[in-house]
Amino acid sequence: MHARDLVSGFPTVTADTPAVEAARLLAERDLPGLIVLDGDGLPLCVLPGTQVLRLAVPRYCQDDPALARVIDEDQADAFVRGLGARTVGECLPEQPRELPITDPDATLLEVAALMARTKSPLVAVVDGDRLLGAITLKALLNRALPA
Amino acid sequence: MHARDLVSGFPTVTADTPAVEAARLLAERDLPGLIVLDGDGLPLCVLPGTQVLRLAVPRYCQDDPALARVIDEDQADAFVRGLGARTVGECLPEQPRELPITDPDATLLEVAALMARTKSPLVAVVDGDRLLGAITLKALLNRALPA
Repeated sequence: MHARDLVSGFPTVTADTPAVEAARLLAERDLPGLIVLDGDGLPLCVLPGTQVLRLAVPRYCQDDPALARVIDEDQADAFVRGLGARTVGECLPEQPRELPITDPDATLLEVAALMARTKSPLVAVVDGDRLLGAITLKALLNRALPA
Repeated sequence: MHARDLVSGFPTVTADTPAVEAARLLAERDLPGLIVLDGDGLPLCVLPGTQVLRLAVPRYCQDDPALARVIDEDQADAFVRGLGARTVGECLPEQPRELPITDPDATLLEVAALMARTKSPLVAVVDGDRLLGAITLKALLNRALPA
């Protein structure tokens, strides 16, 4: 079995997508992350869901948990407003050493090794110059585990 | 709104749970991770799903993607057998600086800041000496996003 047998369509965004729209996509479709496409329709990166939160949460609250506690409840409830008019481009992590992207010929073991190495529960599958979709940890385990 | 209003029951394992059982739980229930309890029923850590793969994938394949490719397809399909009789205890990450664990009084902002800081889409909620359950990124965003 190869990546091409496991891949399925997966929502994509671009660097220009509003961050709040990305957050909504993550929540409504219960996704482990999002594929961010570049201008050529190829994955620029795979964005973990928690990375979108980094834009919404003021920097000083991320650095010091005690400071998050002193914000009053109404303001705390509305933290997502912090996303404002910001875009996915502003959530992109500093370029990691290796992206969770593979080709259709990768075996199950290769996909698993890539997920383990990049700590990404989502691997994008690219065939030359075209995104085929993604493989999630759930899809991989469902296929690999004995019935 | 506080963590106590968002928390819900969440599957737990212990260090003695077979790794293959943990993998099945992750896949069947599409979980972002698992809460690992200690002998007192308190969270020892929150285990990301990809961490379980690290046990199944031979070390040399994780280190060198080219080596994963030379394993033949049948063997690659069966990589999950690598979990063998191993346990969750063997998947535990080296102790991270901060665990994604909070108390029932945490505000939405505090939970979001904790997820962002620990990069964990899953936060365990502990009331004194009792695990109440967990808050997922999905649950947090569903509640925080404007309708």
